[in-house]
Amino acid sequence: MNAKQPVRSSGGITGLPPRYCSDPTIFDLEQKHLFPSQWFPIGYESDIAGNGEHFSFQLLGLDGFCVRDDHDQLHCFRNVCRHRGTQLCPVNSSGLGTVPEGEPCSDNPTKSSIVCDYHGWKYGLDGRLIAAPHMDNTPGFNRADFSLYPIRCAKWQGIIFAQVGGGQDNPTDSLTEILHPLNRIVEPRGLDQFQRKKTISYVIQANWKLLFQNFNECYHCPSVHPQLTPLTDYRDAENEFDTGPILGGPMRIRDDADSVTRDGDYCGPIPDSLVGEELKKAHYYTVSPGFFLSLFPDYVMVHRLSPLAFNQTKIDCDFLFLPASGLSLPTGATAWEFWDQTNLQDWEMCERVQRGISQGNFSPSPYSPLESLLVKFDQHYRQQIARFE
Amino acid sequence: MNAKQPVRSSGGITGLPPRYCSDPTIFDLEQKHLFPSQWFPIGYESDIAGNGEHFSFQLLGLDGFCVRDDHDQLHCFRNVCRHRGTQLCPVNSSGLGTVPEGEPCSDNPTKSSIVCDYHGWKYGLDGRLIAAPHMDNTPGFNRADFSLYPIRCAKWQGIIFAQVGGGQDNPTDSLTEILHPLNRIVEPRGLDQFQRKKTISYVIQANWKLLFQNFNECYHCPSVHPQLTPLTDYRDAENEFDTGPILGGPMRIRDDADSVTRDGDYCGPIPDSLVGEELKKAHYYTVSPGFFLSLFPDYVMVHRLSPLAFNQTKIDCDFLFLPASGLSLPTGATAWEFWDQTNLQDWEMCERVQRGISQGNFSPSPYSPLESLLVKFDQHYRQQIARFE
Amino acid sequence: MNAKQPVRSSGGITGLPPRYCSDPTIFDLEQKHLFPSQWFPIGYESDIAGNGEHFSFQLLGLDGFCVRDDHDQLHCFRNVCRHRGTQLCPVNSSGLGTVPEGEPCSDNPTKSSIVCDYHGWKYGLDGRLIAAPHMDNTPGFNRADFSLYPIRCAKWQGIIFAQVGGGQDNPTDSLTEILHPLNRIVEPRGLDQFQRKKTISYVIQANWKLLFQNFNECYHCPSVHPQLTPLTDYRDAENEFDTGPILGGPMRIRDDADSVTRDGDYCGPIPDSLVGEELKKAHYYTVSPGFFLSLFPDYVMVHRLSPLAFNQTKIDCDFLFLPASGLSLPTGATAWEFWDQTNLQDWEMCERVQRGISQGNFSPSPYSPLESLLVKFDQHYRQQIARFE
Repeated sequence: MNAKQPVRSSGGITGLPPRYCSDPTIFDLEQKHLFPSQWFPIGYESDIAGNGEHFSFQLLGLDGFCVRDDHDQLHCFRNVCRHRGTQLCPVNSSGLGTVPEGEPCSDNPTKSSIVCDYHGWKYGLDGRLIAAPHMDNTPGFNRADFSLYPIRCAKWQGIIFAQVGGGQDNPTDSLTEILHPLNRIVEPRGLDQFQRKKTISYVIQANWKLLFQNFNECYHCPSVHPQLTPLTDYRDAENEFDTGPILGGPMRIRDDADSVTRDGDYCGPIPDSLVGEELKKAHYYTVSPGFFLSLFPDYVMVHRLSPLAFNQTKIDCDFLFLPASGLSLPTGATAWEFWDQTNLQDWEMCERVQRGISQGNFSPSPYSPLESLLVKFDQHYRQQIARFE
Repeated sequence: MNAKQPVRSSGGITGLPPRYCSDPTIFDLEQKHLFPSQWFPIGYESDIAGNGEHFSFQLLGLDGFCVRDDHDQLHCFRNVCRHRGTQLCPVNSSGLGTVPEGEPCSDNPTKSSIVCDYHGWKYGLDGRLIAAPHMDNTPGFNRADFSLYPIRCAKWQGIIFAQVGGGQDNPTDSLTEILHPLNRIVEPRGLDQFQRKKTISYVIQANWKLLFQNFNECYHCPSVHPQLTPLTDYRDAENEFDTGPILGGPMRIRDDADSVTRDGDYCGPIPDSLVGEELKKAHYYTVSPGFFLSLFPDYVMVHRLSPLAFNQTKIDCDFLFLPASGLSLPTGATAWEFWDQTNLQDWEMCERVQRGISQGNFSPSPYSPLESLLVKFDQHYRQQIARFE
Repeated sequence: MNAKQPVRSSGGITGLPPRYCSDPTIFDLEQKHLFPSQWFPIGYESDIAGNGEHFSFQLLGLDGFCVRDDHDQLHCFRNVCRHRGTQLCPVNSSGLGTVPEGEPCSDNPTKSSIVCDYHGWKYGLDGRLIAAPHMDNTPGFNRADFSLYPIRCAKWQGIIFAQVGGGQDNPTDSLTEILHPLNRIVEPRGLDQFQRKKTISYVIQANWKLLFQNFNECYHCPSVHPQLTPLTDYRDAENEFDTGPILGGPMRIRDDADSVTRDGDYCGPIPDSLVGEELKKAHYYTVSPGFFLSLFPDYVMVHRLSPLAFNQTKIDCDFLFLPASGLSLPTGATAWEFWDQTNLQDWEMCERVQRGISQGNFSPSPYSPLESLLVKFDQHYRQQIARFE
């Protein structure tokens, strides 16, 4: 198709040995050594546009929340009071469900401080303990020692990412470095101007790597996604990024469709900067270990992955749009209805693979040329995990 | 407030390290070494007032039942037939729900013997095997060797306690010794004349020690229990017992209330012996590891705790009243409605602490002076567990 | 009763130590060493009478399916595609429920090949990979290397058995050897002509051995199965086979009943060969570790056991009948209604034993003479497991 063509051979390399997805001890290694130092998307700057607004999140077993302070600084904190350890905001542990349209974040009333419901300890939006009733006569107690525990966070193009393993020092450098290669694609279309309109959440009984593998090939599209066939040709994928952690590239939208939606029509405003060939492209990228970014002419789709167990992953699928004139967002229903159907088809396949490879010995076959990105995904992953095995 | 005032400093001592409530291996130690030799309340003498009446119970993973024999002796036995191990009374494993008013014990029809449903082996109320069909020709079989397995039990002031670790020898001494300090408070009001009218059961996703800590301070009352503020002042608590295993003391009922009920009015008969200042007191005691005793002018509340897991505890909350003239018990609804609301508020906080301290590193702050009893609870607990760590 | 009488003493031998049914590590041993080399019934030849028909099954944690090829050969394969490990037929993991009458197998449309839903790989009915799209340019890929994984299977009297531990070599010898002693009983009545009309499935919270023990004695019948008393006398059981793995024998049907059904009447056609005394007999056999075979004049009942955990077993209970004239099967409702009631009574007892023996120390009593087959079952089992302890 282009200069990238050579990578479209899999070289006869076989798939990742099943134990990487079916052995709980591998997941323990990932949790201990791999995930804590990696960035996971948790939400959007536009979700907390006002000072004092916040949203809570669950990431790798940790409850946190993200708040915009009075100086427009974003902070992420662990959702725990420094007194006796109470959760500051009660969190639904299932975390499953769809966010209703028009309510991108369910718990962000504006606040000027954070008060623990148990004994009334009060924190500023920057995390400092500013009041602790009845503690004045406690020997050796110093409020300054009991700020909220920070969670390292950073932002890129309006998307907020968090890293559970680190503190607040030097937070943004590595995220922007990692995602820098995508800037030339997302900046011209003004990704940071897009806002979340809809989120659909899923808990999938499959390892996170099976979901990455599934997203990185369209070999399955004819069998699994008949509704995609009229919109894009499964063989027409360009491997623009073919080394980790970013993988993926554009697919051409067929001549008789405008976008990847239920009816093939646009469902939102199109950035003025999108012209010519770029108007006919859908871009699909995955960034290990928790971020899928899909760009269409009229909307953006983000999959946020949160590994829950060796055989379980939560995915929040967000749909972002440019505000139309008058600042209102389009409904975008033809986009998220299309992808909810498509996502569910994919999740079923990933769950069937998880179950298949979890039973006794299984030796995967060599990859086909249409699975060349999976070779790259596997290589990048094994390089990362090898240090800890 | 009185001579006990000095203890109302916490000395700047910090809370119990979180692992004692969040580490399953600590719970295993407690189950193996701590709980088996300790007394847990299981019911009331008045629940089985007639000969042959019984109630079943579940304690620390063991199914048991308690029966009054024809000589008015109480016995507790494991709920298991000596033939092949069948449960003698089928037990609902969830054990959750409220006992309907007027039915203090759901399964106590009078019986003169206990018959296994599987093969018809029959035991006397004292546990002896009195009939075993078709066993006459079994070489070496002697009925006397196959009595029901006893569970050590004892009674105090009408309340029946059990101990899963021991046999039947020397059963009552230590229980009465442990609870002896409470006698001067409960005997004048005739606790042994009170009868159970209502039980509300809860399964709480929190360690049993968090529930003890919560019950031993009213620092949280202004934030968590607004309905309590008009009845008692959260600062007005006297630490009458401040060494383990008994902790607690009285709080003064405000002038414009009579009792701690939904409307502040009495809801049951008042013992004749209660006069003067004593009429204006609510007493709250905890006895590690399974017993909370709360005394009000017109009723008694008992919390029976049964630790189920490091992060799960069952609580049965009983409401006891003096029979009015004509021997009928009052409905007492304003008492248990008040406490069901209050209990649920507490359980939510304990569950939020459990979740907060179970996530990564957490260092508790020093205790406030209003948490001075928690210092004592923690000390008593650590002294007990230290031998086994 | 007859020459077999001597075995009707239990010799004062005590029951299997409880840990064999309550210790998960014993179950791990069974799963690793015992079950893989043993035959478990999975279905019937008549379920897949036509070429290309198949049924799926779950056995010892493995998903499989059984198919009849175009040359009338039966094959069992693991339910997994050789490409990336996808389950070929989606399987309901609970597997619980009753098969509607007249639909002995829910998923057996005729097929000429097996196609994976994910990427379209296609297998012949003999398991060979016959098409793999887009794999032509994969270096070193040879279709012949990627046949479906076979599961060893064999048939006896129309019943199909599988063995998860072995390959396809030498499949039938040992099954027919094991079951050979039953031939003289089942062949005259033409067991292989019987067809499955109804299946009722159960998941029982009890160890598989408790279910075998329960099935091998009628000592419990007076207490547990009052509906059985008018049909057979619980003492009237002949221990025809009293060494493992086959145990059991006939019981006489009472004079005023014809069969073991809800009303005591016949509910299906009677084989012409059944005459005289044989017309008045019910035969009950167990074959360790997964097969109960019960023969009545007018129908056959098969219990297929699948151990799921140390304290959990799945049982599929099948009811088989001879086709009447015109080839239609009788409804047989009076048979399966009777046994559904009887099964549930047994399962409750087995679950109560499981719970009873799982709590602390329990020493079983000696067996009664009516439990003499349990002595034999325990001996055979301990002989098998001893090599691996």
